[in-house]
Amino acid sequence: MSEYIAPLTDVRFVLEELAPLSRIEALPGCEDFNLELASAILDEAAKFASGVLSPLNASGDREGARWSEGNVLTAAGWRDAYRQFADGGWNALSCPPEHGGQGLPRLVSALVEEMWNGANVSFALCPMLTRGAIEALELRGSEAQKDMYLPKLISGEWTGTMNLTEPQAGSDLSAVRTRAIPQPDGSYRLQGQKIFITYGDHDLTDNIIHLVLARKPDAPEGVKGISLFVVPKHLVGAAGEPGARNDVHCASLEHKLGIHASPTAVLAFGDKEGAVGWLVGEENRGLETMFIMMNAARFSVGLEGVGLAERATQRAVAYAKERIQGVEAGAKGREKVTIVRHPDVRRMLMLMKSRTEALRAVACIVAMAMDIAQRHPEPAVRSEHQAFADLMIPVVKGWSTESAVEIASLGVQVHGGMGYVEETGAAQHLRDARITPIYEGTTGIQAADLIGRKIARDGGIAIAAVVARMRDAQRELAQTDAELLVGIGTRLGDGVDALERAAQFIVGAREGQSLRAATVGSVPFLEMFGIVAGGWQLGLAALAAQRRLAQSSGNAAFYSAKIQTARFYADHMLSRAAGLAHAVVNGWGGALEIDDDQL
Amino acid sequence: MSEYIAPLTDVRFVLEELAPLSRIEALPGCEDFNLELASAILDEAAKFASGVLSPLNASGDREGARWSEGNVLTAAGWRDAYRQFADGGWNALSCPPEHGGQGLPRLVSALVEEMWNGANVSFALCPMLTRGAIEALELRGSEAQKDMYLPKLISGEWTGTMNLTEPQAGSDLSAVRTRAIPQPDGSYRLQGQKIFITYGDHDLTDNIIHLVLARKPDAPEGVKGISLFVVPKHLVGAAGEPGARNDVHCASLEHKLGIHASPTAVLAFGDKEGAVGWLVGEENRGLETMFIMMNAARFSVGLEGVGLAERATQRAVAYAKERIQGVEAGAKGREKVTIVRHPDVRRMLMLMKSRTEALRAVACIVAMAMDIAQRHPEPAVRSEHQAFADLMIPVVKGWSTESAVEIASLGVQVHGGMGYVEETGAAQHLRDARITPIYEGTTGIQAADLIGRKIARDGGIAIAAVVARMRDAQRELAQTDAELLVGIGTRLGDGVDALERAAQFIVGAREGQSLRAATVGSVPFLEMFGIVAGGWQLGLAALAAQRRLAQSSGNAAFYSAKIQTARFYADHMLSRAAGLAHAVVNGWGGALEIDDDQL
Repeated sequence: MSEYIAPLTDVRFVLEELAPLSRIEALPGCEDFNLELASAILDEAAKFASGVLSPLNASGDREGARWSEGNVLTAAGWRDAYRQFADGGWNALSCPPEHGGQGLPRLVSALVEEMWNGANVSFALCPMLTRGAIEALELRGSEAQKDMYLPKLISGEWTGTMNLTEPQAGSDLSAVRTRAIPQPDGSYRLQGQKIFITYGDHDLTDNIIHLVLARKPDAPEGVKGISLFVVPKHLVGAAGEPGARNDVHCASLEHKLGIHASPTAVLAFGDKEGAVGWLVGEENRGLETMFIMMNAARFSVGLEGVGLAERATQRAVAYAKERIQGVEAGAKGREKVTIVRHPDVRRMLMLMKSRTEALRAVACIVAMAMDIAQRHPEPAVRSEHQAFADLMIPVVKGWSTESAVEIASLGVQVHGGMGYVEETGAAQHLRDARITPIYEGTTGIQAADLIGRKIARDGGIAIAAVVARMRDAQRELAQTDAELLVGIGTRLGDGVDALERAAQFIVGAREGQSLRAATVGSVPFLEMFGIVAGGWQLGLAALAAQRRLAQSSGNAAFYSAKIQTARFYADHMLSRAAGLAHAVVNGWGGALEIDDDQL
Repeated sequence: MSEYIAPLTDVRFVLEELAPLSRIEALPGCEDFNLELASAILDEAAKFASGVLSPLNASGDREGARWSEGNVLTAAGWRDAYRQFADGGWNALSCPPEHGGQGLPRLVSALVEEMWNGANVSFALCPMLTRGAIEALELRGSEAQKDMYLPKLISGEWTGTMNLTEPQAGSDLSAVRTRAIPQPDGSYRLQGQKIFITYGDHDLTDNIIHLVLARKPDAPEGVKGISLFVVPKHLVGAAGEPGARNDVHCASLEHKLGIHASPTAVLAFGDKEGAVGWLVGEENRGLETMFIMMNAARFSVGLEGVGLAERATQRAVAYAKERIQGVEAGAKGREKVTIVRHPDVRRMLMLMKSRTEALRAVACIVAMAMDIAQRHPEPAVRSEHQAFADLMIPVVKGWSTESAVEIASLGVQVHGGMGYVEETGAAQHLRDARITPIYEGTTGIQAADLIGRKIARDGGIAIAAVVARMRDAQRELAQTDAELLVGIGTRLGDGVDALERAAQFIVGAREGQSLRAATVGSVPFLEMFGIVAGGWQLGLAALAAQRRLAQSSGNAAFYSAKIQTARFYADHMLSRAAGLAHAVVNGWGGALEIDDDQL
């Protein structure tokens, strides 16, 4: 296959059946929104993804971003594609209209984001980080800051970055050391080194707006002494034009396993006179703002997982339908067949396909919950959906990205020896996917957030609400007269049982040794939660498909595939839940009762 | 960490307790062999691995092998290391003494091989392929061929290759098209293109001996028309010296995801006058010989999995003990700790450690079975052990390599963002490991061999014998008075139940649709078989450790770690078996009852 093709039929199914756009249309501010408009936007995005971004994916990987005498050059074609992207108004679809955004529901912008990620994740990282900067400024910036930066960030004329990590401060941001010295004019001078800064420098735009965590000299130690600053690459003149170069420079780029076209910068702040910056929001409360942005960014990284999974699946399916090898097992003739006929290849493709559809559906119901939480007139409904979104974001991030790595690895396997040769493209997806369970909080960090802040803290109320919704689906499946759906319901029931068992253990573990024990099982718990949530959504998809088939409406082959896909997932994925629950509840001993020097 | 360190303590434990060298000493031809001699060899190999091979691993990856005007140049230091390797007599440890080999038991040479793979798998591939050529010539070569090639291949003065794959003939060798035209002098002229030829050309030695599958003009179609030929790069003169250049040339090298230092060649045979070759063994029976060699090569690739898993684990453990980040969960103080203290990191390390030990133990009992099958005086004992080895080789190949990919990926995760930066080294292990489930027969091919030739064909007799041995271990664990061991026994019992359930389904499926259904589950079955076999061996390790602790003999910390490791594996790995059995028995429908165009 040559280029990425957006999965529009599946996307439309999700918007009709699983995360119904009709619920968004009913929200204040969304009155003019409907499926036709959404479809028009998604169709245009699909064209841009296939026509402009996808063709640069492999060449960008080969060429990479390059550091040259302090400047960073993006790969050939990148500048032009970025200009088209900004000109097309794609940069900040979901940003509020006050500063030029289009105010699209998150549900729709999430599906557009999936397309950018599927077509070219290295490119998509640039607007993803810009959105983070936009959110921070919207949330905590002064009016003057908003006026100065937001219009140009939202239009895409400038880009933004998030500067958190330092060599000694990765997952543990309390160790941040970059210093911000107050100046008489109310500004600050920043000094320090930040690493792993995505699009920390590049040649796509005239200016880059860095959001930077740093400490004031008198700040308390730990997380409560960290403030957020805005540090433009070029100081902004009175007319809003980029002026003098600020004292922030790209010292080098990392040599990474993948996402080669996305420059990952080491940024030196204040090597000379100090980088000029301004406080954003209250002092010493920078981490709070960062965490709000990070929650959004985590969801976006989950969408990277979905996009990469889709892309790897498309490539594997296309190859399997074209590559001729061997004869069909159990067949009488000796006729050579395409490898899609081989049962083990079908198993791999169905694993890839069913998991990808499950990832997308779960991400979409979470996006829909964010829209409802933001816009619904009733506070109780808002908080119910906010609780659901808060609970699920670490699952979307952790599970989608871990799944993307496994799916991309299966994609290599489907290609056999050709998958190991870089020219084929399958290996790039694996290399690109491998960062996603790491950045914006590793899977371990997501899992700790999930079991601690999202489950144990409220005594399991939010997860019990999700379990209740899963039980509804289970009952509905059990009550159909379709044998396959009844079977899916049984598997879903086993999965939900396992989830409840494990959740009970997590809720019971609050402190000391029992918290350590629960943390050993936190990643298996997150994985199981994702698997069962995916099974729930695919079960609902099968029910919807069954209804359509009963009505003889629409594409029968598409709907019967939905049922087979849910069935496959139930047997191959939901069947893993019980074993994972065992690991959660019983698996801590071997990890904790061994000494460090026995490892 | 800087260099690979051979796991000598663990290796010695395996040779004492799990694959006891005492059983080898009792075999004819092994009378002079004992644990002291084996330890001396292993100690020397460990030094060579750490001191010579490991330092070239990262630099070889960066530099890669290069093609230049038809010649292939290996990375800096490679030639010197190869010379030391050959001079040290390491090339063919397990080769028969008649032609200069050392006749070491496979059990010991397997452990040495694991070290080469752990230190530098790109290097280790060269002697691995040479051994393949040696075996083919030993098995089917004429006396003249043996005299001409074996001494120099065994000494390492020349290397060997296996030429199977062509662009249209990967997993399906029946599609081989390379032609061999008989000449009046009894030789042949070969014409065709072979791809993916490991060390197909290089500058390490004066000559390279290619073993090549090709067809005579009058040969029948399919697998029964393929013959094996020996085609030296340089024709060999009367005195055994390399003479005129043969018409076989390296057209290009593949640009691969990993094993960069190992040249993967496209070889053009007969672009001019035809490459001169000679038939090895009977005509049209080349595939048989290749399969015997391939069985050995498959076991060796399994050892690549073990070595890479060990290396990735060592690197992750070292990093986790050195990297300071965060405070301990559940601790009262705010003191920063090394990440090995974090429960989720411990879980990852224990997964890596316990799986690696399981892989090694299973590989070693299979190697021991090969020794007994080759040397035992009683035919019934020989055939019993041959049946066990035949059954287990696809498991060792498929499961060790798939596990190595997962373990190396976990190794990246333990490193966080640093794992994604190539300089750290963790990512190389993932890139290198990713080829191992593909070459010498993909996991799907191993699984088809396992369920077809190794299980269904004998009606499940060979696997029943293994299950009986697992049940013995289960009973022994249940009968101890140590609570942890009883628990391990229960988990093992659940795992063996699942294995039996799935095996019954496989045995019942012989043809047509039922064979297709069983093939859908073949890879999950292979994975489950590996997991349960590993649990069996770690259970035996725990029993042995418990005995040693009861006797207060030896290193108590080492033995108690063995028990915790088995416990961890039982809760995190054996608990997966039931879900996999479900997928095997019930998971075929979704893969087979969907049409190709629904994928």
